[in-house]
Amino acid sequence: MKLYDMELSGNCYKIRLLCGLLGIDYERVPIDLMQGQHKAEAFLQLNPRGQIPVLDDDGLLIWDSSAILVYLARQYGGEQWLPLAAPAMATVMQWLSLAQNELLYGLARARAAKKFKRPWDQDQCRQHGRQGLQVLEQRLANNAWLAGPQPTIADIACYPYVALAPEGGVELAEFPAVLAWIERIRALPGYVGMPGIGAD
Amino acid sequence: MKLYDMELSGNCYKIRLLCGLLGIDYERVPIDLMQGQHKAEAFLQLNPRGQIPVLDDDGLLIWDSSAILVYLARQYGGEQWLPLAAPAMATVMQWLSLAQNELLYGLARARAAKKFKRPWDQDQCRQHGRQGLQVLEQRLANNAWLAGPQPTIADIACYPYVALAPEGGVELAEFPAVLAWIERIRALPGYVGMPGIGAD
Repeated sequence: MKLYDMELSGNCYKIRLLCGLLGIDYERVPIDLMQGQHKAEAFLQLNPRGQIPVLDDDGLLIWDSSAILVYLARQYGGEQWLPLAAPAMATVMQWLSLAQNELLYGLARARAAKKFKRPWDQDQCRQHGRQGLQVLEQRLANNAWLAGPQPTIADIACYPYVALAPEGGVELAEFPAVLAWIERIRALPGYVGMPGIGAD
Repeated sequence: MKLYDMELSGNCYKIRLLCGLLGIDYERVPIDLMQGQHKAEAFLQLNPRGQIPVLDDDGLLIWDSSAILVYLARQYGGEQWLPLAAPAMATVMQWLSLAQNELLYGLARARAAKKFKRPWDQDQCRQHGRQGLQVLEQRLANNAWLAGPQPTIADIACYPYVALAPEGGVELAEFPAVLAWIERIRALPGYVGMPGIGAD
């Protein structure tokens, strides 16, 4: 299995983290975004969106971090990580959507604007991100995990850009239940870290 | 079954469209966004994000349009609309993600800025939306449907804000395969329309 990857991408880290938790071996293929390698023709053959991560599982190509999480959970993780019953699967999906909305267009864009000089409105992004954190805080105040009694890909999808939020100028001190959840994720067997989040 | 709904919301329309295609009866509960009803305490009890749509299926509450599509497909639609095999499910998920990214933060935001005076950068949104349309065009140039040999919730998730794109100042003439796909969706048995897209 190959992962087209960048060390500092929170979306790529979602995949590395789930692989760590599931004990999946894979080869990392670094893509140099600063050099525009993700917009070169060879890479667009792998992913027409020109984005990382992309997974190559024995010739089967999957792009998009949420889609790769779904693939790995279904193929290698079993129902713990993505339950099949309609209500439980929909609950996981709710948090995958939060990860793609408030967290990606809020927290991750605020970080990209501050750290990588992307042209996003930082105040607008931070406000959007804090709305997502409030929803997480409310859920986690009375529950250990986002989508059921045990960790699922919902937690894996939300964790990276929440834990990286301070790099975008969004502090987490006012979200104590979120901070406790971060510690629970870090304590999972097989956990791996990334720069800005804490070492393995 | 009750759907908390607004007539002009493309995200709500995704649910109405799938219900039409699946032959599901439901009651519409209109939420007045102009009056801020979605941010009132009573509504936040249903959805902490303060957004429509929300589905109430005999007391089971599901928020988020993608999550509701997943719920309805799993509970009432069978594998045609959301296949369970890992590669096929991940393929559907890829397009659900495109719908939540380029289409929602591109096309839908461009429409919201133009039609409802929301504070988004219209040029930035249109550019983001066109990137999504290019990816759709590439897929649909050689395939009738987005995620397999038949329509799935991938098509339902992407269709509304694509069909509404001209309301946001993004014309579709340069995307002929997308226009042909729009016609295929309109021809599905049980299809329903919405204002700006075409009548039932």
